[in-house]
Amino acid sequence: MALNITQKLIKDHLVTGEMTPGEEVGLKIDQTLTQDATGTLVMLELEAMELDRAKTEASAQYVDHNLIQEDSKNPDDHLFLESATRRFGLHYSRPGNGVSHPVHMQRLAKPGKTLLGSDSHTCANGCMGMLAMGAGGIDVAMAIAGEPFYVKMPKVWGIKLTGELPDWVSAKDVILELLRRHDVKGGVGFVMEYFGPGVENLSAMDRHVIANMGAELGATGTVFPSDKEVKRFLKVQDREDDWIELKADKDATYDVLEEVDLSELEPLIAKPSSPGNVVPVRELAGKPIYQSYIGSSANPGYRDFAIAAEMVGGQRVADGVSFDINPTSRQMLTDLVKESHVASLLQAGGRMHQAGCNGCIGMGQAPATGRNSLRTTPRNFPGRSGTREDSVFLCSPETAAASALTGVITDPRTIEADYPKIKEPKRTTNMDLLDEPLSYEQAKEVKLNKGPNIASIPKMDEMPDKMELPILLKMSDNISTDEILAGGARVLPYRSNLPEISKFTFEIIDETYYKRGKATVEDGGHAIVGGFNYGQGSSREHAALAPRYLGLRAALVKDFARIHWQNLVNFGVLPLTFVNEEDYDLLASGDVLQLTDLRNKIQAGNEFLIDVKDKNEQIKVRHSLSDRQIEIMLKGGIINWAKDRQQLGG
Amino acid sequence: MALNITQKLIKDHLVTGEMTPGEEVGLKIDQTLTQDATGTLVMLELEAMELDRAKTEASAQYVDHNLIQEDSKNPDDHLFLESATRRFGLHYSRPGNGVSHPVHMQRLAKPGKTLLGSDSHTCANGCMGMLAMGAGGIDVAMAIAGEPFYVKMPKVWGIKLTGELPDWVSAKDVILELLRRHDVKGGVGFVMEYFGPGVENLSAMDRHVIANMGAELGATGTVFPSDKEVKRFLKVQDREDDWIELKADKDATYDVLEEVDLSELEPLIAKPSSPGNVVPVRELAGKPIYQSYIGSSANPGYRDFAIAAEMVGGQRVADGVSFDINPTSRQMLTDLVKESHVASLLQAGGRMHQAGCNGCIGMGQAPATGRNSLRTTPRNFPGRSGTREDSVFLCSPETAAASALTGVITDPRTIEADYPKIKEPKRTTNMDLLDEPLSYEQAKEVKLNKGPNIASIPKMDEMPDKMELPILLKMSDNISTDEILAGGARVLPYRSNLPEISKFTFEIIDETYYKRGKATVEDGGHAIVGGFNYGQGSSREHAALAPRYLGLRAALVKDFARIHWQNLVNFGVLPLTFVNEEDYDLLASGDVLQLTDLRNKIQAGNEFLIDVKDKNEQIKVRHSLSDRQIEIMLKGGIINWAKDRQQLGG
Repeated sequence: MALNITQKLIKDHLVTGEMTPGEEVGLKIDQTLTQDATGTLVMLELEAMELDRAKTEASAQYVDHNLIQEDSKNPDDHLFLESATRRFGLHYSRPGNGVSHPVHMQRLAKPGKTLLGSDSHTCANGCMGMLAMGAGGIDVAMAIAGEPFYVKMPKVWGIKLTGELPDWVSAKDVILELLRRHDVKGGVGFVMEYFGPGVENLSAMDRHVIANMGAELGATGTVFPSDKEVKRFLKVQDREDDWIELKADKDATYDVLEEVDLSELEPLIAKPSSPGNVVPVRELAGKPIYQSYIGSSANPGYRDFAIAAEMVGGQRVADGVSFDINPTSRQMLTDLVKESHVASLLQAGGRMHQAGCNGCIGMGQAPATGRNSLRTTPRNFPGRSGTREDSVFLCSPETAAASALTGVITDPRTIEADYPKIKEPKRTTNMDLLDEPLSYEQAKEVKLNKGPNIASIPKMDEMPDKMELPILLKMSDNISTDEILAGGARVLPYRSNLPEISKFTFEIIDETYYKRGKATVEDGGHAIVGGFNYGQGSSREHAALAPRYLGLRAALVKDFARIHWQNLVNFGVLPLTFVNEEDYDLLASGDVLQLTDLRNKIQAGNEFLIDVKDKNEQIKVRHSLSDRQIEIMLKGGIINWAKDRQQLGG
Repeated sequence: MALNITQKLIKDHLVTGEMTPGEEVGLKIDQTLTQDATGTLVMLELEAMELDRAKTEASAQYVDHNLIQEDSKNPDDHLFLESATRRFGLHYSRPGNGVSHPVHMQRLAKPGKTLLGSDSHTCANGCMGMLAMGAGGIDVAMAIAGEPFYVKMPKVWGIKLTGELPDWVSAKDVILELLRRHDVKGGVGFVMEYFGPGVENLSAMDRHVIANMGAELGATGTVFPSDKEVKRFLKVQDREDDWIELKADKDATYDVLEEVDLSELEPLIAKPSSPGNVVPVRELAGKPIYQSYIGSSANPGYRDFAIAAEMVGGQRVADGVSFDINPTSRQMLTDLVKESHVASLLQAGGRMHQAGCNGCIGMGQAPATGRNSLRTTPRNFPGRSGTREDSVFLCSPETAAASALTGVITDPRTIEADYPKIKEPKRTTNMDLLDEPLSYEQAKEVKLNKGPNIASIPKMDEMPDKMELPILLKMSDNISTDEILAGGARVLPYRSNLPEISKFTFEIIDETYYKRGKATVEDGGHAIVGGFNYGQGSSREHAALAPRYLGLRAALVKDFARIHWQNLVNFGVLPLTFVNEEDYDLLASGDVLQLTDLRNKIQAGNEFLIDVKDKNEQIKVRHSLSDRQIEIMLKGGIINWAKDRQQLGG
């Protein structure tokens, strides 16, 4: 059967399941990527599962999200991550080396491989003929430990590119066009696969731009072929040997098919406050701006900075415009310095920042109140910039640079200049600043370096056969993970410190929960009761891990939000639903649930009865665990499960 | 009479007083400098005094301290400052242009002039043959409005430099040697004046390094001659015409005289946690470091970065070392980019930050817990780095770069390399990025741009002739300005918002003060009573302004700390002391002080009686106001006083 590239990549990595769209498949993961915001917990999970050494072909830990270092917590995290990469045999990318996605592309990406990353824009490396996907931290920890990644077999959306981009229109406008057509959920359940003659007219970094914002389409991944251009890119990186050709079979088919004629595109812009809010730049021309922002993984390439530099060179940005330049990799920044593009940007008034994610994820560079910010970043969700009621527009470097010069939103086709032709260096400045993994012998000797705010994940026990669980909270419908465990600046600094972060658990709902919960740990734990859509919202794992740490052993609700349900399973909290929803009304805070012969019962079937102590009531409950998940639950969570598999050499 | 340079500068600018050490002199101020952390209040003060246009020869507002922009408050401040400079006819230096002191030196400093700045390192520009002094914000506001600056006539400390610096020893080691000899209070009451044949062997920027840390000696200022080297420096800046020669008369004398033989110096280092804690680097050799930090106004020069670049070029900094590069001016950074020094620093693993103060004033780059940080900055007071129990060492760029390569504190003389010879560009990249003042006609039309967190200083009334003031607080000895109004991250963001910041007034002592104080405003205000040394600590003006805003009209204490006393006068709070200290015991919180015929009484003499209502007690009090201060007090504070003088065209 003729296969498209996505199907080939999946077939090559299939461990379990059938390649039927919608069915769960288990995929072998060749490479992983973690960044600092999610990576500390991943490393603590590897420690807790007693991992001896990473089993992937290449795993890299990047430090790019939090570089400000207002106090010691942030640099302590960096030192911890460095020590963990040395202990577990990972690559380490120091703060200042740049954003994970372009650095990974430059130093490690390989056509034909799978990449799993604890960052939603991991899909960017699909530009290299890889199946690259974002996932939760524990999924990446499992992949590092050699476990497959389980995902629903995606459908494949074929996008045929034809023609060539006109002057002043670039890759960002291609993905903005797709967002204009399909909005921010258009790609859910799909891998977006690009093909056709237009692909040749896009550089590897242009393809990165397009693949990156596949995340904004909601896609599982984005795939480009590995062709001569990918070979050229690898040659510039001195990694020609990593190239293989990868293209769709001649008669390959796609579940959905559409065409984009590159020659018909014009400069586009996403209005506040959604990446799907796309209109032509000309429709907004003349709107005053406070900020023009170049950089981020959505426009990380040499050309993205060089073209801005050529456009502003010899001129000065308009009064009152903050022209923020955010290099995306140390290597590329050095190339840009050498080719005097950085001098041009500085002379025009650019504010040169350290290579990293920076303002793209709200770490600085917030716009002024009520002022418009033009950014080449991938997202403009409300408040993401750091300013509460912000007004952020997403566009190409061409549009951002033209607008920096005029002080108002400007269609770059309207400025009086020739479209600059950018020549990339034939050989990049490769500085090998991605630290290589230590040898196994060296790594074994490394101790994890934990500052005072970094705490190991405590050992958690297996699921007992018999539990008496008092109900500590009875909640209504639509409880979100923000209510279970808030995010934000007050809570997030403790993301590597489970004992500390758990103090915030359920505090919005009931401030006494933390103390009451902790008191149950010695006596076998407690339960909570909830309504419909329990655990909606953010996918944060702490919302399952922290309650478990405080003794939560069972959550009995009307139904669960999908990701939180998965997180509960992973951290050994038994997720149960009412078979008869009206039984919800029988239960009150303070009632005690009696679960007996539990280990047998959950293996024997999906439904069983539990008693309510002193009430002469029985409640019929259901679990929806797969066989693998039952195994995980019996072990007390995925960390214990993985630890046992490590010890078995699994 | 033969004069030294300091005496010449003072004589040329003397408006009032005699040049007798210790006596108050009023000096004409030619130039001012404000930075963003202190400048917002200065600009609000100019607004409140209804200034029409700056009366100085050149006044510049720099944005260098707070560049992170975590939310909208920070960029709103920038836009406010920009609009204020346009309204009042000041120069404006945008965020990203660099640190005030080196940028001022490059673009505005002129031999023979006086410079007053609301930053303690303003003394750095003494390197240009200027009398440059740091002062409080209101003093600088007054200077901008054309008022003299009042200061005690300093003594002059002559430092004769002989010889030439050995290889691997640089200007930072000269000032560290003086701090080793005299510690952090050694220079109080003095201007440090350098002369002798060794001066010729120091570049203008080397002299900047030495003059800058005169602040750490506690000196009123630092003065260097204006010689051929200053002429050369100005020529590189394309400002040759601004040069005049300035040197001491042949037979000039000094109040203190000492000699430093440059050829006998060795690399020095200040240990935690005081700049006076100086020892030879060799004594600490081998101590592991976490951070090597290049930059700040204490080592701002082209050569300071270039020498580090030459030393690390082609190598890579040690594992685990954060090598933080903080350019000090956009202009210099561009020069360093062009001469490929920036490429060397990047390739060695340097983290390139935006030009500004950054980590030097605790805005990011905090070291990890318990780790040693080596910095070329001027201060290492405990916690200033952002890390609570930090361990910061001060040293030269040579020592910092050598240690970055080895990962341990390293005497640069011990590394195997030739001492790099640095050639500065003959002509700098002058980008004219310091915005010129608008014309008077244009300026008049400019409206101040106030974000939601910027509030004008409300009008304050004159001192009434009769006041009945309830005592809201009775406090003990040694109340600090931190207790009156705390600093720190919770309070400081409201420094441009008097109504908001006043909510924190006295909250450490009595949380009810804010409400109770505010309630007295309509009824004529209130008083407080204190013990000895009232108002010690930080010089912050808000500690006087905020209580005044809440109705404080008189402070009756055993004695005052000097600066807070001055601040109370400036903001129209009558500072009184007990003539008989035991009267303190007669008063209680809630008593009401009756002050009658007050305007006459304070002009008639230094002592008078006040009644305690319903108590049949009289208390004899004293004020120590000068005639000028009595005038200020009668007007209700220095802002009203200056406003009247503005309107008289004074």
